Amino acid sequence: MLTHWRQGPVAGLRPWQRRAYTVIFLSDTPAGRRFDVALIVTILLGVVLAMLDSLDGIVGQAERSLQGLEWLVTVLFTLEYGWRLACVRRPSRYVLSFWGLVDLAALLPGYLSLLFPGAIFLSAIRILRILRIFQVLNLAGYLGAEWHLVSTLWHSRQRILVFLLSLSTLICLMGTLIFVIEGPEHGFTSIPTGMYWAVITVTTVGYGDLVPQSVLGKALASLVMLLGYAIIAVPSGLVTAKVVGQQLNDQRRCTGCGHLGHAADARFCRQCGTVLPAQGGRRASDKSDSQLADRIKHDGEVK
Amino acid sequence: MLTHWRQGPVAGLRPWQRRAYTVIFLSDTPAGRRFDVALIVTILLGVVLAMLDSLDGIVGQAERSLQGLEWLVTVLFTLEYGWRLACVRRPSRYVLSFWGLVDLAALLPGYLSLLFPGAIFLSAIRILRILRIFQVLNLAGYLGAEWHLVSTLWHSRQRILVFLLSLSTLICLMGTLIFVIEGPEHGFTSIPTGMYWAVITVTTVGYGDLVPQSVLGKALASLVMLLGYAIIAVPSGLVTAKVVGQQLNDQRRCTGCGHLGHAADARFCRQCGTVLPAQGGRRASDKSDSQLADRIKHDGEVK
Amino acid sequence: MLTHWRQGPVAGLRPWQRRAYTVIFLSDTPAGRRFDVALIVTILLGVVLAMLDSLDGIVGQAERSLQGLEWLVTVLFTLEYGWRLACVRRPSRYVLSFWGLVDLAALLPGYLSLLFPGAIFLSAIRILRILRIFQVLNLAGYLGAEWHLVSTLWHSRQRILVFLLSLSTLICLMGTLIFVIEGPEHGFTSIPTGMYWAVITVTTVGYGDLVPQSVLGKALASLVMLLGYAIIAVPSGLVTAKVVGQQLNDQRRCTGCGHLGHAADARFCRQCGTVLPAQGGRRASDKSDSQLADRIKHDGEVK
Amino acid sequence: MLTHWRQGPVAGLRPWQRRAYTVIFLSDTPAGRRFDVALIVTILLGVVLAMLDSLDGIVGQAERSLQGLEWLVTVLFTLEYGWRLACVRRPSRYVLSFWGLVDLAALLPGYLSLLFPGAIFLSAIRILRILRIFQVLNLAGYLGAEWHLVSTLWHSRQRILVFLLSLSTLICLMGTLIFVIEGPEHGFTSIPTGMYWAVITVTTVGYGDLVPQSVLGKALASLVMLLGYAIIAVPSGLVTAKVVGQQLNDQRRCTGCGHLGHAADARFCRQCGTVLPAQGGRRASDKSDSQLADRIKHDGEVK
Repeated sequence: MLTHWRQGPVAGLRPWQRRAYTVIFLSDTPAGRRFDVALIVTILLGVVLAMLDSLDGIVGQAERSLQGLEWLVTVLFTLEYGWRLACVRRPSRYVLSFWGLVDLAALLPGYLSLLFPGAIFLSAIRILRILRIFQVLNLAGYLGAEWHLVSTLWHSRQRILVFLLSLSTLICLMGTLIFVIEGPEHGFTSIPTGMYWAVITVTTVGYGDLVPQSVLGKALASLVMLLGYAIIAVPSGLVTAKVVGQQLNDQRRCTGCGHLGHAADARFCRQCGTVLPAQGGRRASDKSDSQLADRIKHDGEVK
Repeated sequence: MLTHWRQGPVAGLRPWQRRAYTVIFLSDTPAGRRFDVALIVTILLGVVLAMLDSLDGIVGQAERSLQGLEWLVTVLFTLEYGWRLACVRRPSRYVLSFWGLVDLAALLPGYLSLLFPGAIFLSAIRILRILRIFQVLNLAGYLGAEWHLVSTLWHSRQRILVFLLSLSTLICLMGTLIFVIEGPEHGFTSIPTGMYWAVITVTTVGYGDLVPQSVLGKALASLVMLLGYAIIAVPSGLVTAKVVGQQLNDQRRCTGCGHLGHAADARFCRQCGTVLPAQGGRRASDKSDSQLADRIKHDGEVK
Repeated sequence: MLTHWRQGPVAGLRPWQRRAYTVIFLSDTPAGRRFDVALIVTILLGVVLAMLDSLDGIVGQAERSLQGLEWLVTVLFTLEYGWRLACVRRPSRYVLSFWGLVDLAALLPGYLSLLFPGAIFLSAIRILRILRIFQVLNLAGYLGAEWHLVSTLWHSRQRILVFLLSLSTLICLMGTLIFVIEGPEHGFTSIPTGMYWAVITVTTVGYGDLVPQSVLGKALASLVMLLGYAIIAVPSGLVTAKVVGQQLNDQRRCTGCGHLGHAADARFCRQCGTVLPAQGGRRASDKSDSQLADRIKHDGEVK
Repeated sequence: MLTHWRQGPVAGLRPWQRRAYTVIFLSDTPAGRRFDVALIVTILLGVVLAMLDSLDGIVGQAERSLQGLEWLVTVLFTLEYGWRLACVRRPSRYVLSFWGLVDLAALLPGYLSLLFPGAIFLSAIRILRILRIFQVLNLAGYLGAEWHLVSTLWHSRQRILVFLLSLSTLICLMGTLIFVIEGPEHGFTSIPTGMYWAVITVTTVGYGDLVPQSVLGKALASLVMLLGYAIIAVPSGLVTAKVVGQQLNDQRRCTGCGHLGHAADARFCRQCGTVLPAQGGRRASDKSDSQLADRIKHDGEVK
């Protein structure tokens, strides 16, 4: 832990900054965990307030208490923002980071509404802070599995790109065709409108606000629906194959019998019982389960 | 069977209670099986009656026979409830259990309708008892596969949680955005209404009662539809990967370290290197394929 | 082939019956194949005629030629029906078989329309004969893969049953709830109507003819949509897991090293090179690929 | 590279043709890559112009600049078409090829609009050229994974055919049934209209423009929805199983019998028992990917 102080992100900070940093950015102390819980509660309160604010019927006393609570949340967020600024080594880097921008965007509407009364819609931006919940929970190590999902999708990025490109082309072509076939008199006023219809149809959403009227248009619509129905199998198949592949895919080779394909947590070859080579913890992030990663960490300590 | 009497849930019951318990709660005797069938028939009758009750057009003689049948079902349920109370060791525990509450909730509306005429809607609660069918069929051992499904989903609970959290955040953000973009004049009267629209769109249901009118709103809607179309691949992939994974692992327990979940072709424990027991089919119902399990059993016999 | 004559379904038939049977029921002769093609063409013609018949706008000369063609198809079907009756050993068995009933049902409307003019809708029943195409193509051995699909689904029948039972219960409960919440004034006139809405919502079809109006109803609808969105992963996962399982799941054990899990077409152990035990060709129809089955057949001949 | 000149598609061309061919059809030179980028930009510009063209509100100065830009794109496409014609050995073969026809179809509307003013819809055909982007990106080797997808689907073509045939039959039968049940008075004016409704319902699109009104029609609709919900699992399962299958096999070729597609842990060919070449585990995690295909190409050259 002491080594960590010397080289971690808190190196060069004054003692009170270190303590604040530990509370805000880490979650392995009781105070840090309490801060995380308080933050999530405040964010959820802010989200609920923004929702209530958007309702029309709230007037009189209720409206005034609502405004009071909103100011409370804004002040709390401001204090937290200042605290974060004070205890990081390079405040400018925090301000320009993704989370820094989100935190700022959640503050500003409250103050802007003082200058421009009626800027009610802006307060909705505060809802963005809900994203912070992910970071908090992730820091707390509760949801290591989340990274697995992201990495699963990231490994398929090339295929996802091809898939999206094909889908865009299909939507472009089908939107143009329906515009040519149906025309403005049936509501398809332009190619972009036709593309909007194609998206509605290919994703099987089917609002029904734009529907083909002519026989040819209906035939095209049937084709697009069936295509959409078939195409959905592709992303589904890619994701599944990746997840299954990661489950199967540990490529360590047994030095005794040459057997491949051992489970991620295997220490002995299942065919001849020889001790397997160690995993090389660098691939720990690729494991299919956070509990697994934890166990590997423990193994490391035991050794 | 006798040993079972001494320590099972019937220990300490009087003989007639034992007999009743066997009939109601177990299903390995002819009487028990007959009771199960009668129970399912009565429940289905109650469900059909509740449905007919909700229809408007039934009057005169038909209405009177309907009421007669309803009372018959209510009385039968009451008798069964009393019987259950009488033959369990701790009646209070049954009353407060999930099934006890369901059984009680199915009874009360009948009696309440005596006090408050017109409490017609309450009789619909009786439909809850349809859940009992699952317990009955499960007790009967017909549907062991059901537990497999539940355990499959339970093993993925962490990922399902992350998935639901991401989906909620997405719906929250998109609902706010559409509220800001479209506003009350196009039907998006509040952020919760916007979120309702986001759910309709992201799940590809697409009722069409709330549709964006502006160009920006349509662009956002297209994005949400495509996201919904892509996101559906995730739960699908997780469930599939789990089921495939369970197919590939078998349930042998290492005699050395107690580790479960070895690959089907493993001969040595991957955790401690002990020789694994041969494949013996005692947990045959857990195999992913009944024929497979049969074949493995035969292998065992041959050896 | 001669052996086949003695014990097959043509045993005891007169020579012309044998010839007719070969043409109609088998497809390994040029005449049999020509008959299959002619049958499919006639069926498709009948289907197209039934569709044209249902259109309103056809009058005058076109209507008369349509009727002429319809009578031609009816006469052709009658001749075929008589031919089939004449060349099977037990005509009554054919008449009462599934295909016999379909064939008869396709004939009758034509003759009934003589007695009851205006029985136009009955002619639509003829479209049922389109099912015959599957039998014809299957007999021709073109589509062996079809059986694989059916067997894949059949192997999962227990899980599919549990899935359907759960879905029915869910639809029942949700239909009742929405009926209680929304009531007749919002279009939910009875529990069955509520269940119809639940089906529309849970399958993500979303016609939009029945939509909840109250806040509580919308909340329930959101829940049902998300459930439907999640539930769809289950059948998808089950089918996929079955197909993947069949790809991986050849359980032959190598007599040399005891290795399991060889590919379906493997003849040598991939771990030690020992010759594997033969597959027992009776399971050839279970292979995941008809081409594979072909290769196994050829292997059989080589041996 | 010189060998390539002698036997490749540029053999027998004059030096300037060779240079032009390299720029247009290949992308392994800086000039070739610049041409590809310029082509994609021009196509995207053409697509955007076609979309703007379809909007109603553009008049005056904006309309004139739009027309100017459209002529620029048409002229650029014409120049490119001529260039392609000039530098291939057999121009007629290019003209009649798929891409040649697409390129020509993208040109003609511009010139036809001179003869027939008001042929505004024709300009939309130009959007077809967007397909060219795939060829360009593919030539550039960026998206080798695309072929993987196509080959995955191509391997399942027989099953996809069976699936489509079953779906068509289902739609045919359900369309006829709903026509007979609901009839013209509820909007189901003919069997094809009924089939259009069946497509809308089975694909879970659910526009809501055609909805059953009678109880029997609603029951049929519920059945069709649930069928559609179940059927979607089939293509999903087929695609996934194929992708998983391809991941599990690797691309080593047996030196004895030339068999491809061995399991990742195989040491002996499963067809002839020959010892397989070693895996070279360095890129083990990256299988199933276009980079793999590249290595195979390079291996070929090395040999």
